[in-house]
Amino acid sequence: MREPLNISINWKEKMQFIATNDKTDFEVAIDVPYVEEGGEKKGTTPKHLFLQSIAGCTGQIVVMFLRKMKVEMPSEFSIDITGKLTSEHPMYFENIAITYTVEGNTDVNKLKKVIEMSEKQYCGLTLMVSKMANIDSKLFLNGENIEL
Amino acid sequence: MREPLNISINWKEKMQFIATNDKTDFEVAIDVPYVEEGGEKKGTTPKHLFLQSIAGCTGQIVVMFLRKMKVEMPSEFSIDITGKLTSEHPMYFENIAITYTVEGNTDVNKLKKVIEMSEKQYCGLTLMVSKMANIDSKLFLNGENIEL
Repeated sequence: MREPLNISINWKEKMQFIATNDKTDFEVAIDVPYVEEGGEKKGTTPKHLFLQSIAGCTGQIVVMFLRKMKVEMPSEFSIDITGKLTSEHPMYFENIAITYTVEGNTDVNKLKKVIEMSEKQYCGLTLMVSKMANIDSKLFLNGENIEL
Repeated sequence: MREPLNISINWKEKMQFIATNDKTDFEVAIDVPYVEEGGEKKGTTPKHLFLQSIAGCTGQIVVMFLRKMKVEMPSEFSIDITGKLTSEHPMYFENIAITYTVEGNTDVNKLKKVIEMSEKQYCGLTLMVSKMANIDSKLFLNGENIEL
């Protein structure tokens, strides 16, 4: 079993924190963008980080399985996520739209397969958020919308 | 109602992505620390980011309410989170321990109150993860473990 993960955030001032972790030296600056909430845009918002973590989770799993399957890797690969919050507190994501955009000669069926494996079997973060959010995923391969 | 949040991650190479968002220019580097998984420690892991986003969410709400209540602000304030993953795929956080560490003359009862308000009423991210993870929170004020 993998060891527990540890993170810390340290308050700087206003709405600003610096986040660290126990595995690398990378720091993440956290803030809010709204002046009326004391924000100064000196970092990423927690809710954006949350969506980035989900994208990173499924993105890394897709890359890992494409490699394992010896599939030709994409020349470009990106993931966009749009998250819609509830209008009442506590505001949580009720809708999460994930768009996988791939360019290159990657086999379309293998690509569909690894995205399904990632979201249904391997990415624990999409699993966690799926308990409260409706997740809608799309794939574009060389500009074509491929049904998942 | 607040507008939807948008983020993107772009694949660089190996397990590395660069994450961006639609509100600030801050980029977050994503990688894994394990060489056997193709990692090079060139960024934070998605699961660490996930915990950092939860800490940032509750941390900003605590600061916001302490200010609104005109409470004396902490001289130091940090949040540590330890997340324990399941041993089987999909690996998700089944236990999340949140430790609030505060130094200063901040009123202890107001502090307890805002932490409770944050976790129970305002922080949508702790709500989302509480559907699958057991969340255990602790508060230390000037070194003393305060019951929440």
